Amino acid sequence: MEAYKKLVKIFNRQSRLSHVGAMLEWDEAVVMPIGSGEARAEASAELDVVSHELFINSGVGDLLDKAKQEIAEFPDKDESINKWNKSNLEHMKTQWEHAIVIPSDLIEAQSLACAECEQQWRVQRPRNDWKGHLPLLKEVINLTRQEASIYAEMNGSTKYNAMLDVYEPEQTSEKLDREFGHLKNFLPFMIDEIIEKQKAEEIIRFDGIFHLEAQMGMNKAILTHMGFDFKHGRLDETTHPFCGGVPRDVRLTTNFNESNFIEGLYSSIHEVGHGSYEQCLPTEYSGQPVGNTLSLGIHESQSLMYEMQIGRSMEFMEFLSPFLMEYFPNQKGFAPENLYKVQTRVTKDLIRINADEVTYPCHVLLRYEIEKDLINGDIEAEDIPELWDLKMMESLGVNTKGDYKDGCMQDVHWVCGLWGYFPTYTLGAMNAAQLFFAMRKKHPDVLSLIEVGDFSIMRAWLGKHVWSKGSLLTIDELMTEATGETFNSEYFEQHLRERYL
Amino acid sequence: MEAYKKLVKIFNRQSRLSHVGAMLEWDEAVVMPIGSGEARAEASAELDVVSHELFINSGVGDLLDKAKQEIAEFPDKDESINKWNKSNLEHMKTQWEHAIVIPSDLIEAQSLACAECEQQWRVQRPRNDWKGHLPLLKEVINLTRQEASIYAEMNGSTKYNAMLDVYEPEQTSEKLDREFGHLKNFLPFMIDEIIEKQKAEEIIRFDGIFHLEAQMGMNKAILTHMGFDFKHGRLDETTHPFCGGVPRDVRLTTNFNESNFIEGLYSSIHEVGHGSYEQCLPTEYSGQPVGNTLSLGIHESQSLMYEMQIGRSMEFMEFLSPFLMEYFPNQKGFAPENLYKVQTRVTKDLIRINADEVTYPCHVLLRYEIEKDLINGDIEAEDIPELWDLKMMESLGVNTKGDYKDGCMQDVHWVCGLWGYFPTYTLGAMNAAQLFFAMRKKHPDVLSLIEVGDFSIMRAWLGKHVWSKGSLLTIDELMTEATGETFNSEYFEQHLRERYL
Repeated sequence: MEAYKKLVKIFNRQSRLSHVGAMLEWDEAVVMPIGSGEARAEASAELDVVSHELFINSGVGDLLDKAKQEIAEFPDKDESINKWNKSNLEHMKTQWEHAIVIPSDLIEAQSLACAECEQQWRVQRPRNDWKGHLPLLKEVINLTRQEASIYAEMNGSTKYNAMLDVYEPEQTSEKLDREFGHLKNFLPFMIDEIIEKQKAEEIIRFDGIFHLEAQMGMNKAILTHMGFDFKHGRLDETTHPFCGGVPRDVRLTTNFNESNFIEGLYSSIHEVGHGSYEQCLPTEYSGQPVGNTLSLGIHESQSLMYEMQIGRSMEFMEFLSPFLMEYFPNQKGFAPENLYKVQTRVTKDLIRINADEVTYPCHVLLRYEIEKDLINGDIEAEDIPELWDLKMMESLGVNTKGDYKDGCMQDVHWVCGLWGYFPTYTLGAMNAAQLFFAMRKKHPDVLSLIEVGDFSIMRAWLGKHVWSKGSLLTIDELMTEATGETFNSEYFEQHLRERYL
Repeated sequence: MEAYKKLVKIFNRQSRLSHVGAMLEWDEAVVMPIGSGEARAEASAELDVVSHELFINSGVGDLLDKAKQEIAEFPDKDESINKWNKSNLEHMKTQWEHAIVIPSDLIEAQSLACAECEQQWRVQRPRNDWKGHLPLLKEVINLTRQEASIYAEMNGSTKYNAMLDVYEPEQTSEKLDREFGHLKNFLPFMIDEIIEKQKAEEIIRFDGIFHLEAQMGMNKAILTHMGFDFKHGRLDETTHPFCGGVPRDVRLTTNFNESNFIEGLYSSIHEVGHGSYEQCLPTEYSGQPVGNTLSLGIHESQSLMYEMQIGRSMEFMEFLSPFLMEYFPNQKGFAPENLYKVQTRVTKDLIRINADEVTYPCHVLLRYEIEKDLINGDIEAEDIPELWDLKMMESLGVNTKGDYKDGCMQDVHWVCGLWGYFPTYTLGAMNAAQLFFAMRKKHPDVLSLIEVGDFSIMRAWLGKHVWSKGSLLTIDELMTEATGETFNSEYFEQHLRERYL
């Protein structure tokens, strides 16, 4: 196993450099002073280039063939280890093939362009400055198209499918058109029906001041209770919440608002789903491709399992209510029934990250349709605002004309080069629904345990079927082992009908 | 200038990777979760190794000779640029010579051993666990000796002198024995004399609770006033204050205590001296060796200029007093005269970082004598506690027997491999005294301006004579250009006599 061992060492080195990069990203988003962006962009780009060069000069190509032969000729006595090694080798091959086709110049140019675009976006978005933003975004698109062309040629696919494949292996726009088409069929009617039904509901709105330190204290207490390991992770504030870091040092971020504690809390709950997946990956394969999370669609299924499937259940509200009363003793509206009503309220809104789980897919579909055409070269960046306005009006009846800030400039994804990423949010929602049906079938008491603060069954089931698998299986295999069938969009529809109608 | 341009590019890359490393160090000391140390140590070590390998494989050796010839044959028309380029080339050469003699294995081993030793020290020190600490420290010493042997052979010097040279070019233990000998002659008597004199002074002690947020707010306000640029820097809390980061992103740290605001404040004032030097380096040479700070002894002269020469003057107390009254309106003892008495009080204490400027050199001399013998191989790590106890008793009459926590385990320096570093603190104090005499000679009004919050003259003088010079000059040249003579320990004695007797 000489060659395979050498590969393991090479990928370990890469993983360590990714660790370094992950910390830089967290730093930039959470603590970096405003004027340090330019120097930081150069430093980050250098790290990317060095890491890339180290990788492509490491002789992985030759080792891959030798290692394949080794594993075939001298399989490990332990069939399970053998399976992991084989899968690891497959992932190594995919990463290698993707790495060698991209020139270092392009990586550096992308790193610099995205850093500049993102840093400027942080200033331009509050100013509603689309005109200033456009040239920077165009450069990011230009470079993404170059990357996509290279992958597309390699895969024999369209450019957009090549980008999709980066985040969600084997996903294609043809499949997405079908699955998302299903959503398009029922969602608009369902949304209207729910809104009509909820009209009669009376909600006690929270109001007053929720001190930031109290919010942070409460969020940490709740996440600790939900199983997050703060010895190997943190929770901090940032503008656009994300889960960063590495499995041994998971950096959750959230965004608090003094006049509204609930959005920050649910951001934290969302991110702790991501973070739990990371923290519970198989440590024996840490640093190896097979030890990583499987795909963004599966990653998002975990955050949405926490935030939506579990987090918006009546039972979770029973769990939550005492925390709220403890940390904000002079406030009203913390009865579980009211919390449930607040958190399942459906509204047609401008902002994706604030959207409820019923309207959320509309935000994703809009972005999917625009980015597909953009990356494939059928439209240009200049066309985005008009298409955005049109599609928002069509799907949610909301007017975004001239409002770039809360329109097409609201997200960080395109800004930092994540094209082909948005669909994974809705794939995640659909995966989460399917996984949760399977979990409840096996453990009908899972929600009643959560009601009394016991997350162990839920964590054990997810640990067994998702977290501990790393990237051992394909998405189809993982879903089939966990739920008895491959991806099935019916569960998401069923979930929405049960909860909302 | 082909070769020289190539060198500039190579050193720029190195500087960017150092930027990355500096951010990791800050993260580890300020925000990293306690359980993430092992993975982080591996990631940091990998970065060190990659950076080192990139450097030694970059062909610098050949380029250095060619570049020297280029600069000789085609000097820049601008004599000043020419001088900077020549000096830059000299520094490149020194860095190159130091880099190529150290094997990558040793660098990785040092990085890992120091990380482990430091992480464990954070736990062992509060527990007074010398026994647990000893084997980890021995490993660090063992690796430092290996490094020192390699440099010593290259320089034809003793091992300890080889380490000294890393932090303070051209410094030797022979010179130090002489300069520190001067201190040893007068300090013990002077300390007793001052303590006797101060016995009669009445001091109003601060007492009560100083909320941490108020301390942070006040510290930031004061540092802003003193010229620190928070657009390119931060101030955070940590256990052992330091100034980290890079010139465009300076990370000051301090340590607040709810029952004592003054130590945290003076830590901040100390670090802002370091930080101002970093922020005001010549930007045209940023990323180049000649654009860096000159030496640790000069660096420390800047922090002690702020903390001691300026920061403990009566005029500075006049500046400070209104801030204290604003942030802590219900407290007593903020009259300038009382602040001055508190901050110039001389006591024989266990802890170096809390020491006043008169007893501080005693702490340094003790460490200098021990580390010199340790690195030269004349004593072993096991001997440290006994020597420590003995020397503390001799110099300050303080008993440290069995108290490792506040004895030989109190500092982070040895723990993280910084051997030969301590003398630069006292060299810094002596440089600061000499520089301040020269500054006051040129600008007799500098302190009266500071009294009314105007730091511009002080900053302009330091900017001109120290900060903007980067590493253009040797230490002797810099001191001579700034003060009219080379290093002269008399000024420090004179300063102490004037202020304390």
